[in-house]
Amino acid sequence: MVVFSGDLDKAIAAFIIANGAVAMGSKVTILFTFWGLNILRKPEKVSVKKGLVDSMFGFMMPRGSKKLKLSQMNMMGLGAKMIRSVMKNKNITSLEDLIKSAMDSGVEVVACSMSMDVMGIVKEELIDGVKIGGVGYYLGEAEDSNVNLFI
Amino acid sequence: MVVFSGDLDKAIAAFIIANGAVAMGSKVTILFTFWGLNILRKPEKVSVKKGLVDSMFGFMMPRGSKKLKLSQMNMMGLGAKMIRSVMKNKNITSLEDLIKSAMDSGVEVVACSMSMDVMGIVKEELIDGVKIGGVGYYLGEAEDSNVNLFI
Amino acid sequence: MVVFSGDLDKAIAAFIIANGAVAMGSKVTILFTFWGLNILRKPEKVSVKKGLVDSMFGFMMPRGSKKLKLSQMNMMGLGAKMIRSVMKNKNITSLEDLIKSAMDSGVEVVACSMSMDVMGIVKEELIDGVKIGGVGYYLGEAEDSNVNLFI
Repeated sequence: MVVFSGDLDKAIAAFIIANGAVAMGSKVTILFTFWGLNILRKPEKVSVKKGLVDSMFGFMMPRGSKKLKLSQMNMMGLGAKMIRSVMKNKNITSLEDLIKSAMDSGVEVVACSMSMDVMGIVKEELIDGVKIGGVGYYLGEAEDSNVNLFI
Repeated sequence: MVVFSGDLDKAIAAFIIANGAVAMGSKVTILFTFWGLNILRKPEKVSVKKGLVDSMFGFMMPRGSKKLKLSQMNMMGLGAKMIRSVMKNKNITSLEDLIKSAMDSGVEVVACSMSMDVMGIVKEELIDGVKIGGVGYYLGEAEDSNVNLFI
Repeated sequence: MVVFSGDLDKAIAAFIIANGAVAMGSKVTILFTFWGLNILRKPEKVSVKKGLVDSMFGFMMPRGSKKLKLSQMNMMGLGAKMIRSVMKNKNITSLEDLIKSAMDSGVEVVACSMSMDVMGIVKEELIDGVKIGGVGYYLGEAEDSNVNLFI
């Protein structure tokens, strides 16, 4: 899978599919690129030396899964809160637990190196256990894979 | 296919691809999830007992294919009307006819059970002929499939 | 691949994947449909006789790859400029060079004939080397392909 989007709803969909596929015995690799990188950011500010543009990007983009917006009906964050609260009330695993569960069960979470370069994000700013890889690595895995999605 | 989006233009694209694939002899299964569920809603209000949050979701989201917006240049619905009128003038099948034709020719239309739960949508609110299924069902079909798309 | 979106960031992603796949020895076909058609438009105005609605579409949609917007944080074009400038500073190939390189190395760039019809775009308005094809052509190629993405 390629996760290009950094929307809360699409991130949830991606990780539900990933967890489902792993449960059914498949090997799953997800390349996080562009806005998708934000899903993998640590929630706390990491002290890194950066240029002005890189700092601006880092400041303007959501830092980590808890800050993601909905792709529709976000209503300044209210929609995102509503979805999270509904999921909790209906006993559906939260995005953070879906990510943890995916990584614990061997889903390969790869941050796109070129996107990290463009957006000025370094490895230290990403959650633990994330690998760094390029489009070549993804394509190699995709060729061997039965199901490919761009989310 | 997974149809995650509830945009008019993406719904049209999904059903054009589905109808094309069926015409070429392929078996097609589409899982409608999140906003994509709205494409399958009946246009009329269905009387169902719901909690407050479920009712709010139902009220705020477009009820059925005729209420969908464009992903771009929607301009408060004007863009959607324009596209529909252009398609009609140029003798291109409307979304509603594409859906009917797909279902008549055996495209399997599956509503994602977890999304129905999150958004508080029940089977009675969906058009006839829709099956209910989970991500596991989709993944089983996807494994056997040659072409997989996330729309 | 199907490129449905006309966003700068998604266009870049599509062509990076396409160039990567070609470099690894794969055959790549991309069907540009709906907003994706705008990526293929010539930057200059082409003199073609059109009806009013077709002209309006042509006027309102971005003419060519240099006019594309970001899917997020576009900020009236400032975001798009920022991404382009960052890519230049970090020596990442521009979208225009990615397109050229893809076409030079044999990536098949196909404009969706039905979308051209809907949006009133004619062959003369598209960059050189673009083929015209329908969803049937795409599906035929997709069936033979290992990796399929909807962008």
